[in-house]
Amino acid sequence: MTHRKLNFNAGPGALPADVLAELARQLPDHDGLGLSLLEMSHRTPEFEGVLDDARDTLARLYALPDTHEVVFLQGGASLQFAMVPMNLGDGGAYITTGVWSQKALEEARRLGAAHEVWSAEAGGFRAVPGPDTLLEVPAGARYLHYTTNNTIYGTQWHHPPRLSCEAPLVADVSSDFLSYPMDLGAFDLVYAGAQKNAGPSGVTIVIGRKDVLRGFSGDARTPTILRYATHATNGSLYHTPNTFGIWVVGLVARWVERNGGLTGMAARAQAKADALYSVIDARPDVFTGHAERGSRSKMNVTFTLTRPERERAFLAEAERRDMIGLKGHRSVGGCRASIYNAVPTAAVDALADLMRTFE
Amino acid sequence: MTHRKLNFNAGPGALPADVLAELARQLPDHDGLGLSLLEMSHRTPEFEGVLDDARDTLARLYALPDTHEVVFLQGGASLQFAMVPMNLGDGGAYITTGVWSQKALEEARRLGAAHEVWSAEAGGFRAVPGPDTLLEVPAGARYLHYTTNNTIYGTQWHHPPRLSCEAPLVADVSSDFLSYPMDLGAFDLVYAGAQKNAGPSGVTIVIGRKDVLRGFSGDARTPTILRYATHATNGSLYHTPNTFGIWVVGLVARWVERNGGLTGMAARAQAKADALYSVIDARPDVFTGHAERGSRSKMNVTFTLTRPERERAFLAEAERRDMIGLKGHRSVGGCRASIYNAVPTAAVDALADLMRTFE
Repeated sequence: MTHRKLNFNAGPGALPADVLAELARQLPDHDGLGLSLLEMSHRTPEFEGVLDDARDTLARLYALPDTHEVVFLQGGASLQFAMVPMNLGDGGAYITTGVWSQKALEEARRLGAAHEVWSAEAGGFRAVPGPDTLLEVPAGARYLHYTTNNTIYGTQWHHPPRLSCEAPLVADVSSDFLSYPMDLGAFDLVYAGAQKNAGPSGVTIVIGRKDVLRGFSGDARTPTILRYATHATNGSLYHTPNTFGIWVVGLVARWVERNGGLTGMAARAQAKADALYSVIDARPDVFTGHAERGSRSKMNVTFTLTRPERERAFLAEAERRDMIGLKGHRSVGGCRASIYNAVPTAAVDALADLMRTFE
Repeated sequence: MTHRKLNFNAGPGALPADVLAELARQLPDHDGLGLSLLEMSHRTPEFEGVLDDARDTLARLYALPDTHEVVFLQGGASLQFAMVPMNLGDGGAYITTGVWSQKALEEARRLGAAHEVWSAEAGGFRAVPGPDTLLEVPAGARYLHYTTNNTIYGTQWHHPPRLSCEAPLVADVSSDFLSYPMDLGAFDLVYAGAQKNAGPSGVTIVIGRKDVLRGFSGDARTPTILRYATHATNGSLYHTPNTFGIWVVGLVARWVERNGGLTGMAARAQAKADALYSVIDARPDVFTGHAERGSRSKMNVTFTLTRPERERAFLAEAERRDMIGLKGHRSVGGCRASIYNAVPTAAVDALADLMRTFE
């Protein structure tokens, strides 16, 4: 492989070089079978082995209890915004901490009633509710939905939400999936578009309680393909899944396992995040962090140049040093360094060096 | 690459060896950019170039009129079964010629009223309506939906449906997309899961009239992500698309273009189909074709052994000769040879040889 860019893309983002090399090697001829995985019927023992391995490795990484199961879907988190209320039913409660959780709430409201419990909007989306904030969940809320990491604003939950009354938990974990050990057994359902830490775009991982996934509670008019039960009871093979995407997710999960599992990922994520936030904190004349300290994301580090007119020069210098993907999301501007699992520590160190010496 | 199997899988199915080699070569480092396409944000000029090229090549192959446009979605034909009535509205008319068109009708009925115009079920799904069959479409039908090629039963339309009154045409073209020049300008909308002739699973191609795709006529509660307008007005970039899948579709479309375009594909498909049907016709004591002659598919050749107890021996001998994917769909049994664009003539000749000499 030629020289690799230092890839800070927010998603699709960096994948492990090992996984890319394995993909290239196996792509024309999968395991010596004489055909590519892309050409393989999803109803063959060979593909079912690939699917089972991806599912089992994810379950093993999270020490998933028997009450829960993993399902592979398509359509990204955006489709889950609709599928959650379509399947779990009317009357969800939502915490909105960013663009994606707002969209999730909007889609639930399009379908029926949904309650906004707390919004970060007035605070400029700089924080998630703190560990002491008691969130007033309406009694009988069908579920409580939140977004564990806000890719665009660079905020992240580092504790469970503190609720006024119990409600089944549902979370969009797209952008911090596979980055730390999370007790998935505490959730009715979580979902993740794969294209951050887990694989390519086009495959969505849904992990939930078997009784929730298989026990449809929505409107009878809900299409078959949009019911979790359809996919769960058919082992993710009701229709042709994204076979390539599932293969890559499995390879990435195996890579996580070889590299210290979720604990190993968490330690690396902490070190990489510390490297960047410490420069931001040390140089307030040059950089201004977007997120409040207690809500800082270990996946997406967002900041602006304290003198905004210097942003272009900063990004140009970064580009000269082979760093890509540092421009903030088009909806907020500024800079964002996405430092997912596969972004090497050396890449983050190079960015920290630049930030230490810029101006 | 090592020895390639003779791949008769029904889908995902054979892809051109050239395309697989190109994928393997470019996978770790796309165009020398220092990162894989899998790691590339979908909001970069580089990926937009890949997307535009896939879209433009498809449009060029079909000489698509300016009134129409190409959109890339996820979720396969199964999601389209629901999206068509969700977007076009209640009151579609359906011709059911196989398992997939039946499912399309079921999903339309789940959402509202839908009319079955004609069914192949009583005839054992051996034929599509003939060119002289006048199909009684209810006046004011919102659209007329049919399936151009029935993958499971091996039947195919070789003429447009003859309708008692005009209705906008909608077709599932999943399994004969890119196999012959089709006048897509005559349709309000066609859709294709890519995993037959066009690419890997996980990407769906929708081609339709711009005013139909952008002019939503469904229920106001329809989720944003399930509206064609959302995707059409955002150039297939409303959310993160299946970036890898779109890349492969573009490479396959370019391969079609280099190999004679749709006319070239049609001539090869005819020759390959003739090679197999001529043996079936010559040896009625050994093979029984499933489809009636006028409805025979040039993509999926379905047959049984006239002495069913010999099927296992036939499939074993085929396997010994490196042929895979010849077992019929689990819902109908028998044998099926899927001879999509990328199945080489030599592979079909090898199967014809086996069929000529078996027993």
